[in-house]
Amino acid sequence: MSASIQSFLIERKTVIESLLPSHIERLNAPEKIKKAMLYSLNAGGKRLRPVLVLAVLNSYNKEESIGYPVACAIEMIHTYSLIHDDLPCMDNDDLRRGKPTNHKVFGEALAVLAGDGLLTESFRIIAEQEDVEAQKKVLLIAELAKACGVEGMVGGQVADLEGEGKALTLSDLEFIHEHKTAKLLAYSIIAGAILANAAEEDILKLKKFAFHMGIAFQIRDDILDIEGNEEVIGKPVGSDTTNQKATYPSLLTMDGAKKKLFEHQAKAKEILHTLSISTKLLEDFCDLVVSREY
Amino acid sequence: MSASIQSFLIERKTVIESLLPSHIERLNAPEKIKKAMLYSLNAGGKRLRPVLVLAVLNSYNKEESIGYPVACAIEMIHTYSLIHDDLPCMDNDDLRRGKPTNHKVFGEALAVLAGDGLLTESFRIIAEQEDVEAQKKVLLIAELAKACGVEGMVGGQVADLEGEGKALTLSDLEFIHEHKTAKLLAYSIIAGAILANAAEEDILKLKKFAFHMGIAFQIRDDILDIEGNEEVIGKPVGSDTTNQKATYPSLLTMDGAKKKLFEHQAKAKEILHTLSISTKLLEDFCDLVVSREY
Repeated sequence: MSASIQSFLIERKTVIESLLPSHIERLNAPEKIKKAMLYSLNAGGKRLRPVLVLAVLNSYNKEESIGYPVACAIEMIHTYSLIHDDLPCMDNDDLRRGKPTNHKVFGEALAVLAGDGLLTESFRIIAEQEDVEAQKKVLLIAELAKACGVEGMVGGQVADLEGEGKALTLSDLEFIHEHKTAKLLAYSIIAGAILANAAEEDILKLKKFAFHMGIAFQIRDDILDIEGNEEVIGKPVGSDTTNQKATYPSLLTMDGAKKKLFEHQAKAKEILHTLSISTKLLEDFCDLVVSREY
Repeated sequence: MSASIQSFLIERKTVIESLLPSHIERLNAPEKIKKAMLYSLNAGGKRLRPVLVLAVLNSYNKEESIGYPVACAIEMIHTYSLIHDDLPCMDNDDLRRGKPTNHKVFGEALAVLAGDGLLTESFRIIAEQEDVEAQKKVLLIAELAKACGVEGMVGGQVADLEGEGKALTLSDLEFIHEHKTAKLLAYSIIAGAILANAAEEDILKLKKFAFHMGIAFQIRDDILDIEGNEEVIGKPVGSDTTNQKATYPSLLTMDGAKKKLFEHQAKAKEILHTLSISTKLLEDFCDLVVSREY
């Protein structure tokens, strides 16, 4: 993995983190809900999804700035999903990235509403972007709704909840992760491609690339929960085992999970090689996802 | 109030209720979440918001069918808000329209997700409508997000929660109802006007009309909670008093609340008279809101 992807990630993460609060601060709404939304939005994270939008635009030699609104919208959707997932009725988590979860600070009612608010505003940000044609915005909105609604992320969370305490097959596990994680990661890539005027053929290929990278992302997550360094990943390792959660290592052994991880990495990169653009950045991104330590 | 508005309402309600399930049934998602969404969507209600979209199109002599997708999207947003409002962490209601609330049947986690899903799909329905220009769809989506996000309905619910157990002023109460109720009712009217190619000037007037009708709607709700017939309204009367909720009658006396109701009705109808279209249907709609028994 090259140093350049690391600096790309750090630089764009800084840009995104400087833009995110403005989408909330400008709103004419009760201060308390804005504070709750900002709390989770400013709580850090890798910001992989918004940076992916910019990486795709960069790969197509387009101005990255045209992707800022959608990138922020995606991070807001991701944040809403974390707030709702952490609720007592869902995963009942008290800590997220080492900080108290939203409902621990603001109470459950406000946490539900902060999530609802982030979800709603994200669609508005895309609809209100001025320098993108209406036809593209409509496509971006429809694809986002598909990626994060019941056919995507919400559906994955439902399957995850339904699977709790049950013996899952590999295909059950893949359904959960494809929907809960990979679809929104894939959307980041597709959104970048739509904004870059990529050919329909490229978009289809990038969707396949995104699927493999998304699953690889999740397998790496499962591996880090066993082999990771608590201080580096910022959360206790072994929580999946404690919670008896089905994971790739638990279903395939650690060696089998790593083999699967590398298979998805290889497939993802193979697809990139069939694109006509320079894919060095996306290849590095894929390597980063596979080898990341947190 | 004429008989024609009653038959208009009943006929269009039937159309909307026949269309709503199809937006969920076609989704490729876990059956359980579709069931939870359909349960609340099919639980009845006056369907005033979607019918208003059609009433505006009818007033502009346009095909009402062009408003079906947006009308369904609005009813889905309204339904999501009821599901989340009923949650134990919010109003903690066990019954809605005489039936167990969503979380009572499906559990809290699925109720949160059914709400999230309905909210998300509603944006998709508008984005995917085929016979409307992209520019209009973008406007419909941006206005919907404003009406139901933290600047609108969600913000109103926040203010409502914050006001619990406090002595509210009339202006506090108006803020809550303008945001929690009137903004989405107003959106129904604006959406109809956008689809009907109404002039910008008309849309501004209709927004004012919608504000007065929305507040009138809420005052009538407060009055019915005291003077209503339990069997007709389908819920116990006096719940606002029991819950020590600030209402128009509690702040203004019953006579004062009725005076305020008629003031808003008069202002709403006055604005209609300045429009160039035939406003008989909207006038009747306004009268219906003011004199309804449930």
